[in-house]
Amino acid sequence: MSVLVVGTVAFDSIETPFGSAERILGGSASYFALGASFFAAVRIVGVIGEDFPQDYLDLFTQRKIDIDGIEREKGDTFHWRGRYHEDINLRDTVELHLNVLAGFEPKLPERYRDAEYVFLGNIDPVMQLEVLNQLRRMKLVACDTMDHWIRESNEELKKVLKRIEVLVINDSEARLLSGYDNIVKAARAILKMGPKMILVKRGEYGVLQFSDSSVFATPAYPLEQVFDPTGAGDSFAGGFMGHLARSGDQSQGGLRRAIVYGSVVASFTVEDFGVKRLTDVSLTDIEKRYQGFVELTDFHS
Amino acid sequence: MSVLVVGTVAFDSIETPFGSAERILGGSASYFALGASFFAAVRIVGVIGEDFPQDYLDLFTQRKIDIDGIEREKGDTFHWRGRYHEDINLRDTVELHLNVLAGFEPKLPERYRDAEYVFLGNIDPVMQLEVLNQLRRMKLVACDTMDHWIRESNEELKKVLKRIEVLVINDSEARLLSGYDNIVKAARAILKMGPKMILVKRGEYGVLQFSDSSVFATPAYPLEQVFDPTGAGDSFAGGFMGHLARSGDQSQGGLRRAIVYGSVVASFTVEDFGVKRLTDVSLTDIEKRYQGFVELTDFHS
Repeated sequence: MSVLVVGTVAFDSIETPFGSAERILGGSASYFALGASFFAAVRIVGVIGEDFPQDYLDLFTQRKIDIDGIEREKGDTFHWRGRYHEDINLRDTVELHLNVLAGFEPKLPERYRDAEYVFLGNIDPVMQLEVLNQLRRMKLVACDTMDHWIRESNEELKKVLKRIEVLVINDSEARLLSGYDNIVKAARAILKMGPKMILVKRGEYGVLQFSDSSVFATPAYPLEQVFDPTGAGDSFAGGFMGHLARSGDQSQGGLRRAIVYGSVVASFTVEDFGVKRLTDVSLTDIEKRYQGFVELTDFHS
Repeated sequence: MSVLVVGTVAFDSIETPFGSAERILGGSASYFALGASFFAAVRIVGVIGEDFPQDYLDLFTQRKIDIDGIEREKGDTFHWRGRYHEDINLRDTVELHLNVLAGFEPKLPERYRDAEYVFLGNIDPVMQLEVLNQLRRMKLVACDTMDHWIRESNEELKKVLKRIEVLVINDSEARLLSGYDNIVKAARAILKMGPKMILVKRGEYGVLQFSDSSVFATPAYPLEQVFDPTGAGDSFAGGFMGHLARSGDQSQGGLRRAIVYGSVVASFTVEDFGVKRLTDVSLTDIEKRYQGFVELTDFHS
């Protein structure tokens, strides 16, 4: 089963305490697609400018990611510049150039419209709604958002939330969206807005899953070196959705295992700059670290 | 098997966003002892002043905690006043009166000296060393400390670390003690200082265990209401040591289950002011929430 992602395909310029990188491949759709591609066929919908290099597109096609939904428009590609603190959990956005993303109207190629597993990356909720309107037979739609949309496009975001199954969000966004400091209360309040399931990303502390029938917690994989946290959340979502599309198992156990696969993918992402690790590792590496998660968390045997 | 704890028996005055309490029973030894008492016989060594009420001592004896090691000295009891922020993970010490604790020289009653399971609560490392010198046949010694001793009594603390098996510490203390920001590197560095095992307490994010042969992570139990975090860490240590003393199982699995029992006890502690919940709940409640931890973290079935 294939997975469709709509989101940004971008240039990222990143500074961390361990080094810096200029105009490397970034964007929510890029990280998601590479993360999901270990498990399932992936289709990207996004927009790039004239300056976007063929090399970066080749990275996708080498992973058999379908890029027919990436439109090339006149102008420059979306560019984000960020700087991480000594405490690698904190970052500042130094520059943000929307460029071609500003006028983007996502149009799904006809053959994309039957997509069953869909991820709406962190873009304007208006665009997310446009995508939902073009889909015909979704089985599972997940979506991400951010503080900016929660504050500035709250009404549109609420419309999106009524039409999706899974909200992927970090803990400060969950607090902002719900108005509750306590994360359990926050999640319960957001469940009432529409989603059947909330995945709260807590960076180095792991992931919490909330639904009406279940609460699941998994730690993050403890790493000796977190090199660049960019894309951890999107590649987590990619691993999660990709694994679900592969397994087709939406039982409670199946959803939980998909969350752990997502966490495995994210743990690799942060080990090097940008998407580098995601293009290095194999499915065997991923299965091995999945086993590492079992050993990390098991207290029965 | 019984557990010996040396630490503070105190008055706590606490202000949280949800209310306040004056001069309630507090101190590391109190929380530890009540937490451990669900599983094992407990003996306390500590000091109180003339102002310490019999009611509080009765709380211990009702739980069959041996208080013969609590000395009553001339003067007032150690008193801590703390204020928690809206973000309940943050707190300020508003007042700290050492009182009788200032001149405390722990002396173990003769029959305490054969203790096998020992917890050195967060007190001056010089006092922790005095206790170690009075013990004859320890099987497992765990110890806590804090930023003050790491900074001001580093040499004495290092001597303690060479003589214990388990260091129970929070993440900021682990960073301060090791000089590493990354918690995996921090734990590896501290393991080289002597302890066979480090338990890193991360509050609402759970606990990480590090030893040469194992890394274990457990989330905290997600609670809708964290009323008062005081004593969470000490009652965690109490549950951990108490369960180990009961089971006698120091296998990897046995240690991990003890960590989860400790987390269960801590999750109850924070649900009400001071030690109130610890004196309310039963072993049945604890076993039930232990099962809740299994359901919270299981992704195999």
